[in-house]
This record gives sequence, C-alpha cells and structure tokens, in this order.
Amino acid sequence: MKKFEEKTIHSNRLYEGKVINLKVDDVSLPNGHTSKRELVEHPGAVAIIAITPDNKIILVEQYRKALERSLVEIPAGKLEPGEAPETTAMRELEEETGYTAEKLVKLQTFATSPGFADEVVHLFVAEGLSKATNGAVLDDDEFVELMEVTLEEAERMVIDERIYDAKTAFAVLWAKQRLSIEN
Amino acid sequence: MKKFEEKTIHSNRLYEGKVINLKVDDVSLPNGHTSKRELVEHPGAVAIIAITPDNKIILVEQYRKALERSLVEIPAGKLEPGEAPETTAMRELEEETGYTAEKLVKLQTFATSPGFADEVVHLFVAEGLSKATNGAVLDDDEFVELMEVTLEEAERMVIDERIYDAKTAFAVLWAKQRLSIEN
Repeated sequence: MKKFEEKTIHSNRLYEGKVINLKVDDVSLPNGHTSKRELVEHPGAVAIIAITPDNKIILVEQYRKALERSLVEIPAGKLEPGEAPETTAMRELEEETGYTAEKLVKLQTFATSPGFADEVVHLFVAEGLSKATNGAVLDDDEFVELMEVTLEEAERMVIDERIYDAKTAFAVLWAKQRLSIEN
Repeated sequence: MKKFEEKTIHSNRLYEGKVINLKVDDVSLPNGHTSKRELVEHPGAVAIIAITPDNKIILVEQYRKALERSLVEIPAGKLEPGEAPETTAMRELEEETGYTAEKLVKLQTFATSPGFADEVVHLFVAEGLSKATNGAVLDDDEFVELMEVTLEEAERMVIDERIYDAKTAFAVLWAKQRLSIEN
C-alpha cells in the first residue's frame, strides 16, 4: 500500500472551496529526486445500483458543468462531513428517485481519478425498493430527469456511450453479470 | 446533451498547473437562480486492456499521491497536447509494460469524476501483444511494478478491493465478460 511512497516535503494549499480543495505538494521520490504533485481533495461520494420491482435500473440525467453536457448516471451524491456512506446513500436514493430501499448492501469502494484527486465512490446495491409516499424531493436548484431501463438497454447505452460515466458503466456491467433478472 | 444547461455568467481561473487547472464558474440555473461550480480541467487520459500471449491481464502498481497509497491499475497515461489517444496508448503500453501491440481497438470513452472534473479516459483493447526488444522504458522518476494475473484473479482483486481504481474495475469486468479466454 505504501510501495514507492512519495513523501511530502512541503504542502501548499492554494484553494479551499465548498466542494473541493486544491494543494500542490513537493514530494521526495524513491530515488531521492523531488517533484511536484497537483492534488484535489474531495469529500467522497456514494452511488447506488437500484433495481425497481419490475426489474429496471434507475438512472438519473443531470447537467454536469465540468463537461458542459448532461450525463446519465446511477443515483449518486457527495458525502456530508461526518456522515456514514450508508446514510448518504439512503438519503440520495430517496431524494433523487422517490424510491426507498429496505436495505443497502455495500458492494465496493473505488477511486475515480487517482492521478490527481482523492475522490472515492462507495457503491451500494439497493434491495427491496418501493415508492416513497412523497416521491422525489429535489432541492429548488436541483434539476434531474429519471429514467428506468432494462439492464439490456443499459448495457447498450454503455456500449454506444449514451452512458458516459465510469461508475455507471461499472455498475451496469456488474448488475448485468451478477443479478439474475428475467426481463 | 444540453438538458438542464447551466450557462456560464462568469469564469474565474484560479490556478493553471502542469497537469490540472482550477476555475470557479458562476452559473445561471434553468430556474434563473445562480450558483457556483468549482471545476478542474484535465487533459484526459488513455487506459489499455492488455492480455498477454498466455492470457493474463497486465496490471501496473504505482504510488498515487492523491490517495497516499499505491494502486493497482491497468496501464494508463495522460494525453500530451494535440496527441491522438491511440498514439498515447501505444506509447504508454510500450513504456510501462515492455509490450507492443499489433493493434489497439478503441473500446469506449468515459468521464471519471463528472461532479467536478472534465477528465475523460479513452479505453483501448490491445491485440497481438509481443515483448518489445527493449523491455519497459521508464522515466528516471517513474516507479511502477508490473503484474500479470489471470482474469479470474483480477476479478477477485476487484471484489476484495485490491483493485481500488474505477477504470481498472470496469476493464476487468468487461474483459471477463467479453473475452473468451481459457485459463
């Protein structure tokens, strides 16, 4: 886990924002040379594989300013400070989709952009979905469109890049491979 | 693709680095409200699914300062300005692994952290691998360890998080599902 460790000589914090921070570290390499690393700090996020009672996967389309386009993704959201990932996942699922889950099973955690950011996504599988009485409860400033598609259709969307998000592409492949669903 | 577009009112570039830039944009939301978006610009990257003649997938372990740990990933690298992704992929494969490919087939492109960064990864499948005469040619300041494992072993590594990188997790699932390899 510490193989080829790059030790911090000096860390220069350049920006502390609402969501991300930026720092530039001077590091000492295994051969004694020094280098610079530009690093983004992010609180981490959750994402949820949610299959409806009629065996469709819930997808959410929203605008992603970083890419200047809308993306189709599985339901996801940032961790609040000190919040357990399960809690975030339960909340985001209900708020974004209007479904509640009996149970969330942790699938795995992975780093999304290890070359420059510490963001990790905790991936959950929602079990026992049912419609919440309230439906989706979005913030005033949140704009998303829900979709429910079969896993076969979701897989086609990965192949032809209508799904253009790495965590969602992983989630669809995983679900197609592991969940035995008859459509 | 432009659904729920957030139009830029003002863009404030806070940092221009060697690898990434940071800007904070004031945006106009679909309901006319305004908000701020903290955005990282990244040149994009390539990653390569490379299966050796004896049917093993090539993995590379290296230190990732952002996460303060080493990660096991498929061979990957940043795009140089103006460089075609295929060219980067061919170069990175040979430099990092010491293998050359007869052909690289584009699998797909995806965004890695759409919530705050524009990084995309262009994923390739290398066909017809053979050992380069020189072996791996690493920069003086590059420290990586090569691994060759079966797809079954790689899949176990995803499940138990020894593979903790999203693009690699996707690549392993894809390869396990699509490449008919007898081990």
